[in-house]
Amino acid sequence: MKAMQQQILVPNFVKVGKGALPYIGKLLHEQQITSVVLVYGSGIFSMLHTTISHALAESGIEILKAEETEDTNIERITSYAFSIPNRTQAIVGIGGGKALDFAKYASFLRDMPFICIPTSSSSDGFSSATASLMVDGKRTSVPAKIAYGIVVDIDIIKNAPEKFIYSGIGDLVSKITAIYDWIYEYEHGVGELNDYALMIAKKAVNSFIRTPFESIKDDLFLKELVDSLAMSGIANEMAGGSTPSSGSEHLISHALDKISTHPQLHGVQVGIATYLMAKVQNHRYKRVDQIFTDTGFWDYVKTLSIPRKEFEEAIDLSPTMKPYRHTYLHEEQYREKAKELLRTDPRLKEILV
Amino acid sequence: MKAMQQQILVPNFVKVGKGALPYIGKLLHEQQITSVVLVYGSGIFSMLHTTISHALAESGIEILKAEETEDTNIERITSYAFSIPNRTQAIVGIGGGKALDFAKYASFLRDMPFICIPTSSSSDGFSSATASLMVDGKRTSVPAKIAYGIVVDIDIIKNAPEKFIYSGIGDLVSKITAIYDWIYEYEHGVGELNDYALMIAKKAVNSFIRTPFESIKDDLFLKELVDSLAMSGIANEMAGGSTPSSGSEHLISHALDKISTHPQLHGVQVGIATYLMAKVQNHRYKRVDQIFTDTGFWDYVKTLSIPRKEFEEAIDLSPTMKPYRHTYLHEEQYREKAKELLRTDPRLKEILV
Amino acid sequence: MKAMQQQILVPNFVKVGKGALPYIGKLLHEQQITSVVLVYGSGIFSMLHTTISHALAESGIEILKAEETEDTNIERITSYAFSIPNRTQAIVGIGGGKALDFAKYASFLRDMPFICIPTSSSSDGFSSATASLMVDGKRTSVPAKIAYGIVVDIDIIKNAPEKFIYSGIGDLVSKITAIYDWIYEYEHGVGELNDYALMIAKKAVNSFIRTPFESIKDDLFLKELVDSLAMSGIANEMAGGSTPSSGSEHLISHALDKISTHPQLHGVQVGIATYLMAKVQNHRYKRVDQIFTDTGFWDYVKTLSIPRKEFEEAIDLSPTMKPYRHTYLHEEQYREKAKELLRTDPRLKEILV
Amino acid sequence: MKAMQQQILVPNFVKVGKGALPYIGKLLHEQQITSVVLVYGSGIFSMLHTTISHALAESGIEILKAEETEDTNIERITSYAFSIPNRTQAIVGIGGGKALDFAKYASFLRDMPFICIPTSSSSDGFSSATASLMVDGKRTSVPAKIAYGIVVDIDIIKNAPEKFIYSGIGDLVSKITAIYDWIYEYEHGVGELNDYALMIAKKAVNSFIRTPFESIKDDLFLKELVDSLAMSGIANEMAGGSTPSSGSEHLISHALDKISTHPQLHGVQVGIATYLMAKVQNHRYKRVDQIFTDTGFWDYVKTLSIPRKEFEEAIDLSPTMKPYRHTYLHEEQYREKAKELLRTDPRLKEILV
Repeated sequence: MKAMQQQILVPNFVKVGKGALPYIGKLLHEQQITSVVLVYGSGIFSMLHTTISHALAESGIEILKAEETEDTNIERITSYAFSIPNRTQAIVGIGGGKALDFAKYASFLRDMPFICIPTSSSSDGFSSATASLMVDGKRTSVPAKIAYGIVVDIDIIKNAPEKFIYSGIGDLVSKITAIYDWIYEYEHGVGELNDYALMIAKKAVNSFIRTPFESIKDDLFLKELVDSLAMSGIANEMAGGSTPSSGSEHLISHALDKISTHPQLHGVQVGIATYLMAKVQNHRYKRVDQIFTDTGFWDYVKTLSIPRKEFEEAIDLSPTMKPYRHTYLHEEQYREKAKELLRTDPRLKEILV
Repeated sequence: MKAMQQQILVPNFVKVGKGALPYIGKLLHEQQITSVVLVYGSGIFSMLHTTISHALAESGIEILKAEETEDTNIERITSYAFSIPNRTQAIVGIGGGKALDFAKYASFLRDMPFICIPTSSSSDGFSSATASLMVDGKRTSVPAKIAYGIVVDIDIIKNAPEKFIYSGIGDLVSKITAIYDWIYEYEHGVGELNDYALMIAKKAVNSFIRTPFESIKDDLFLKELVDSLAMSGIANEMAGGSTPSSGSEHLISHALDKISTHPQLHGVQVGIATYLMAKVQNHRYKRVDQIFTDTGFWDYVKTLSIPRKEFEEAIDLSPTMKPYRHTYLHEEQYREKAKELLRTDPRLKEILV
Repeated sequence: MKAMQQQILVPNFVKVGKGALPYIGKLLHEQQITSVVLVYGSGIFSMLHTTISHALAESGIEILKAEETEDTNIERITSYAFSIPNRTQAIVGIGGGKALDFAKYASFLRDMPFICIPTSSSSDGFSSATASLMVDGKRTSVPAKIAYGIVVDIDIIKNAPEKFIYSGIGDLVSKITAIYDWIYEYEHGVGELNDYALMIAKKAVNSFIRTPFESIKDDLFLKELVDSLAMSGIANEMAGGSTPSSGSEHLISHALDKISTHPQLHGVQVGIATYLMAKVQNHRYKRVDQIFTDTGFWDYVKTLSIPRKEFEEAIDLSPTMKPYRHTYLHEEQYREKAKELLRTDPRLKEILV
Repeated sequence: MKAMQQQILVPNFVKVGKGALPYIGKLLHEQQITSVVLVYGSGIFSMLHTTISHALAESGIEILKAEETEDTNIERITSYAFSIPNRTQAIVGIGGGKALDFAKYASFLRDMPFICIPTSSSSDGFSSATASLMVDGKRTSVPAKIAYGIVVDIDIIKNAPEKFIYSGIGDLVSKITAIYDWIYEYEHGVGELNDYALMIAKKAVNSFIRTPFESIKDDLFLKELVDSLAMSGIANEMAGGSTPSSGSEHLISHALDKISTHPQLHGVQVGIATYLMAKVQNHRYKRVDQIFTDTGFWDYVKTLSIPRKEFEEAIDLSPTMKPYRHTYLHEEQYREKAKELLRTDPRLKEILV
């Protein structure tokens, strides 16, 4: 067989900017898509359906079905996928992580285009090829497909509650520890390293943390945030998995999702864990601390009264989240160091209760 | 027909770092490649062949042929491509732009993997899918294929003459004006914009110009430079052409190649033109000026005694370089403004003669 | 965007022949697959596991899990898919349609290679990219992915009960009416025709029905049968759906699956319906009758005491099976003609009760 | 890296039938192609340009350039490729093997769609991804890309001189010996076998030779011939080379092209060599003889006065045509047997002089 060169799927269109939403009709029309179903996140229908339905109607695109959902149960998404009309040509998800994952997975099951319209910058999920779903009662990262089209309206992102911006910042900054874990496990003989994926992930986070800003609601700041989150998708596609954007800090967050009485937004948990793991890795933690200070991320976290105890448990649980990987938290010495830092590091003492 | 989602080719492996070269054997072995031909740039054979042949031998990879060339004539590359042994499994290019383009194009004509080992950071050519060749006496950008594997040894890059680093800086910074031209022509109804490609190109240049450095020979600085140049390849693949990395500033350089009595390195010409066009576009020219000042790019340019007259001619000629595009230089008013700046801008007066 | 040319997935390896099974170890090894799970159809484990486990062991491939199942419930397959070890590299299905669909769909959900080892020639399912599963209580054709590797051991096919050979013959011959329906609906403005897919489907059936044989257990005859069924997969991939191999005759079979008290093998139902529809279409029905006579298909059908009444009901129900298509059965006049033929055609009177 | 599954390019559209030509406008329009260049074979412009230009005009497609050529020189095709307007969106080849190869290769060099309109059934070149060009004075099979679209008008095929039909028959029947050689060399440890490619090639030839016909100008017969030739393209794509359709018989033809004073049509030479090699392989030569007798192929060959001497020389030269393969003719014993058959076989004595 001839040497096969790797190909990756990329979106056919991506539009990020102020006032981008109304272009959805024109963009779908250019792709010769004429009938769609819409999946909105909770509370988003009343907010955006008028704009969207108007834009679609103007381009002659029929809406076959529209609903709100935050369901992440794989069985219910499967039912949905096979209940929509056969002449559906694309599934459009509009909302936060859950509605997007719902639409993303239903599109995957039906092998049809997934059009992705995130309404907040809470995570890099909108650009990833995986969905985080409940499978047999367990939150599971399941393979799906990268979006066929992405539209991000910066005005909408800006008007979402600030916590979503903080979540996005946390999820983005986490690449710092994720990349370090990836290199670490590769040097320990686990997995493969892809320098291209690695450099893209690095550029995404570095260009963001070096962006000057006055307020986290600056248009430019938000655009850089969204762009950087979007680039994760490409890094993951190249790596053939989530290694460029998910390391030990994500394991802690996954564990928190299991044990916490009040889990926080994904990127918020991830952000705190990123600072902690950067200290464990003894790598760029000052940078992390600074960006979280400058953006107000720490101030926001302080309002949440997150119990230190849960982080301790999460650290112990973390290696079982992905037993086949080998991050810092897969070694006992670093889990111990992490737990010690929870008790001794001034910043962590300040933000956890 | 079902909606087709875009796929792009990406390298199967990319390794960028200090001491990366000796890994070439192992990397090819992992790809089950067992026999190769080598194409070196002028003077590179004596410098690197011992290391390379040793690394290949250790992994059981046979060298069927090795030679030095800087030929960019499409006919001679065609002859070469069909003269190498039929059992060749990959063509390895080692050198600067010309040797890489030679190997890249020969690989394309034979439909076999192109392994790319740049020895300088003079341009983003090592990551692009096109080659710059002489066709019927005219320098022409011809389609080829993105590299199957890329190895960049930062130690080698560092030891190349400084002018190549300046050339790389110029080629990278040029994305600032190139992107602006791309948006400009799109807004004038020419071509299509791909926001994903655009953001990757932007991240590449922004993360670079925001990188702190003490010397342009800092390992970190060089790695950022190479990484950013590498990312151009992906941006161009997504855009399906060179629009993300080649705008009016490249047109000037192409024109200079035609008329100049002593053409300079591609990225040097492009860099000067980038500053000029940034002023014409009235967009981020201070940034451009600062990076060129801080890195010593301007100091280097001053040593070259480049005649202002040639730039003037090149500006007049520039729109004919790519008549189907619509950059700032495709409008007379901006050509006039550019020529006026050549005469009045203090920086340009200082560096040109 | 540049014009995109269609790409289709094809298997990395296909091996069809007498004594092919033991090659499974070597074939997986060549693909660098080192750990698999096995899914056997009912009764197949005891028959083939010794051979398979021996072959895999010899090539150093670890079996992480092995089980028998005929489950077609999408929820249970989903559970299974996310319960297998994370280090699984491929899912191997060994058996008839159900076990293969189970393994095919689980592979799709996990985005890993599906290795397909059909133990009977009962249908073209082993080469298709879809699976026939129970979704919310309804048999549904769901998208999956074409096999990564296929191994068909003609000795095993030969030793399967004869009814499976008849089923395969019925499923293959059905392309005659399926193709005719496809052209018919295209001429009525529904869907798109792909002449390449069409010619491959035609070649598959024509080369088969023109193959001389003495017994349906002739090695050559069985190989032609399997090869022709395998080619359906490629035809469907090209068409981007099942139109080349599924027309009105399949609608009748789908309807029978819903209403029949004792549904027959897929290809047996399809075969009878093919003769009926060929008469309705007034196209090649003599050919169909002859191959069914020569192979003993009719004789086998006579032993089944299939009630004509069920066929009548199935015809009425057929257009609702796929309301967005437009086969002959989507027009009332042809449904009437079909029902009349059930009562008047000598052959149909002879084989149905 | 994840297991990569093979993908093959296939045409976006294929239309084969009586009166197919005028659909060219509609078909290109559906692909959103709006400007093309046309390359006609000798004598074809005056025959078909009116029809084609009318069809294109009706669909609003602009003809940027049109010319006649039979040039197979790679340098001249290269020149042509880079001389056509930059806004060209597709290159349309209309004619026999040479004009098609010209257009196919120019399209490949420009990375743009190749639209293929064969005007005779003389070979399977219209469906292949390679072109037969003169490189440095030697006829060379060079890689290109499979057609983006194919239109075959059976009425045009029928009106081409009969010799082209004979050539096509010879080229198609040659798969019998080509496949046998492929299996033979694989069993001798050379190359890889792809059973899927093999079965498609087999189906192509078997369905054809089993097609009943009264005259070689029967519409059905010609359609089967064209369809079968078209399927070669897919077989070769799957195999990643020409092994499914080119064995020892093609080596003889390649050698004849070098030494013969009056080379015959490709498929005519190949056909004679197929009969010869089938006798050497002792495999299906009666079948070959019969189809050549029934179609009048032998009668046509007799009119050509082909010297036996040239075949003898070609046999000696044949293994050097592709030294890395291992067909029957790569062994001296079979070359001797072949030369003996030239002297002793009644059929060969009858048709050669």
